[in-house]
Amino acid sequence: MRDFSIENDALAAQVDDLRWPSARNNFWRALAHDPKTLRRTWESVKQVMAPGALEPKVKEMLYVAVSIAHGCTYCIHSHTANARAKGMTEDEYAEMIAIVGMAAETNRLVTALGVAVDDAFLVDPPQNSGPDF
Amino acid sequence: MRDFSIENDALAAQVDDLRWPSARNNFWRALAHDPKTLRRTWESVKQVMAPGALEPKVKEMLYVAVSIAHGCTYCIHSHTANARAKGMTEDEYAEMIAIVGMAAETNRLVTALGVAVDDAFLVDPPQNSGPDF
Amino acid sequence: MRDFSIENDALAAQVDDLRWPSARNNFWRALAHDPKTLRRTWESVKQVMAPGALEPKVKEMLYVAVSIAHGCTYCIHSHTANARAKGMTEDEYAEMIAIVGMAAETNRLVTALGVAVDDAFLVDPPQNSGPDF
Amino acid sequence: MRDFSIENDALAAQVDDLRWPSARNNFWRALAHDPKTLRRTWESVKQVMAPGALEPKVKEMLYVAVSIAHGCTYCIHSHTANARAKGMTEDEYAEMIAIVGMAAETNRLVTALGVAVDDAFLVDPPQNSGPDF
Amino acid sequence: MRDFSIENDALAAQVDDLRWPSARNNFWRALAHDPKTLRRTWESVKQVMAPGALEPKVKEMLYVAVSIAHGCTYCIHSHTANARAKGMTEDEYAEMIAIVGMAAETNRLVTALGVAVDDAFLVDPPQNSGPDF
Amino acid sequence: MRDFSIENDALAAQVDDLRWPSARNNFWRALAHDPKTLRRTWESVKQVMAPGALEPKVKEMLYVAVSIAHGCTYCIHSHTANARAKGMTEDEYAEMIAIVGMAAETNRLVTALGVAVDDAFLVDPPQNSGPDF
Repeated sequence: MRDFSIENDALAAQVDDLRWPSARNNFWRALAHDPKTLRRTWESVKQVMAPGALEPKVKEMLYVAVSIAHGCTYCIHSHTANARAKGMTEDEYAEMIAIVGMAAETNRLVTALGVAVDDAFLVDPPQNSGPDF
Repeated sequence: MRDFSIENDALAAQVDDLRWPSARNNFWRALAHDPKTLRRTWESVKQVMAPGALEPKVKEMLYVAVSIAHGCTYCIHSHTANARAKGMTEDEYAEMIAIVGMAAETNRLVTALGVAVDDAFLVDPPQNSGPDF
Repeated sequence: MRDFSIENDALAAQVDDLRWPSARNNFWRALAHDPKTLRRTWESVKQVMAPGALEPKVKEMLYVAVSIAHGCTYCIHSHTANARAKGMTEDEYAEMIAIVGMAAETNRLVTALGVAVDDAFLVDPPQNSGPDF
Repeated sequence: MRDFSIENDALAAQVDDLRWPSARNNFWRALAHDPKTLRRTWESVKQVMAPGALEPKVKEMLYVAVSIAHGCTYCIHSHTANARAKGMTEDEYAEMIAIVGMAAETNRLVTALGVAVDDAFLVDPPQNSGPDF
Repeated sequence: MRDFSIENDALAAQVDDLRWPSARNNFWRALAHDPKTLRRTWESVKQVMAPGALEPKVKEMLYVAVSIAHGCTYCIHSHTANARAKGMTEDEYAEMIAIVGMAAETNRLVTALGVAVDDAFLVDPPQNSGPDF
Repeated sequence: MRDFSIENDALAAQVDDLRWPSARNNFWRALAHDPKTLRRTWESVKQVMAPGALEPKVKEMLYVAVSIAHGCTYCIHSHTANARAKGMTEDEYAEMIAIVGMAAETNRLVTALGVAVDDAFLVDPPQNSGPDF
């Protein structure tokens, strides 16, 4: 069994080095078994969730929506808490839940029926190719 | 083989009855094989995506995020088009994609590590019980 | 924290209005936080699961099979209970479970191998287009 | 590149040995790169889909429902063709599709809301333990 | 309620017949409600996990990786235990977890962006067709 | 429509800056619409797939296995090509595919049956808690 106690100097050192006071939850602690993955994931989440074009609240709600689709109970709880802390109201929460359910239904209907993408939707598609170098 | 031509009076009638001029895309046409499911799904999507507490643009982005997680190419295209039509910028699109990817990664890390939900996240949990009647 | 007690008049009213004596389980109670979604989902499930071309028992078994694939423990339990109440025998239950497992295996094998759809399967395909209006 | 031509004696031999005249579709041919997996999968599918307590048509419909949830286009096509060959009507097909969509929606709503399993559903649960030997 | 006690002669007989002393865990016991599926699954797992070209440890790690993607907690636990018993080190475990997370992220990014397969990857593709007989 | 041509100086600059000669495939080019995500993802994949405790070939195979479970065709192709380039034989490929299919089957059987984790598997569980600081 590995030693996760605070007396484990190597672990304590890398945690101190990270300085993540607000992140002492079970997820980051579970990742502490692998300092490299802990640090990379921490830096990545910080970049992705940093203030940007989208409201912080909306960013957390997108995180929750994906976590529901992937069936991650922990992630649903933690990012719902985050979304609420960043201003999500109960009405917004209810609307988000309803959209996730509705999307799940039409996603499966579309897959079942093998619906071909309309040309109209391809006029300005998600960019799926880069520069021609 | 069923008859989906416009000469099919029963089908034409139910389509006219629905009056869905803006929805003549392949999804609704594919659902036309089942008028009851077509109507119910149409009414449900209308209710869920109607103006509410969340911006229409955000609603469409939540729809796209779930559709990516479920692997529905058609839905990704159609709701990305909708989101753009409702004002989603390229920067917002890029941030949304990044969040979906990041959530997928931590969702699976959490599942892999079997992380238990922190008590702190349960203070104001998603409501999972109703009145005690 | 929201008030879900029976003394909550608004909630009690909308529940009474729905008249869902047989549905006082945790799912519908959890949805009671959002009367609009509760009512729409209730009406939709009623339509979809109503007596039709398929036996009620078979309908519930299809619901269970999808719920297993989506990893929804609650749904597996509730619709298995429903299927049994509607006549599913233990042998039918065992056969259903075996099919779900088998399908999962060949689904992934097909995805892994990138198998192209045989022309023969396209002779009478799922309808993926509607009227040409 | 491996040799899948009929002149490949080893392959031809194992295929002849299997005697699968009705199964010369792309799936079984793709599996022919691995005779052991081909034979095991073939024997397993035969056992699972053999006449039993459930109607052959219902068995194929359960297969389709799971394949939709897993997003396997090939499997949706092949087992829909099978289901039709075994008597599935268009009305039954439409009802099945609607159930898959509905289940997807409530599956995700339940996951989102973290609904606890009702005691009533545990009275006669799926057997999750065996003999105490 | 079915009788899973050791006094159930039919069950005891089929279990004895299988002679699976090392497999008295909850999975095989749960499958004991269906002797035919129990035996087929047992024989299949034995074939798939038998010593072959891949190290036993690697085989178990592939099993764990898939189980994480499918959200099967039991399977994650049981096959992680197996992988450790067959020599997986903590460093290998950490690397595996990191790969599963990374793959989940790029899987979803690719789906989101609708990336087309490069011709270079098709030079020596997974075999998706068999002999032309 | 955004400009992905090589004449787009900003894009050309960030691509040059990255120096990713071996990575000029469609995935990285698709990500070029978002330089920040491109760079972060590139650095992350480099870290995760770098030489470590596991063989490079095994790392790629784990990537393929997860990509199959998530239904990402592009990722299956690209990482299968990588695995072959790093020494995966046809026999190893066949064994990997068989394991993915088998895991999918037992994953769903376990979920269907609600199998509880054996105590024995918890003796040396995946670490799900960190230091107690």
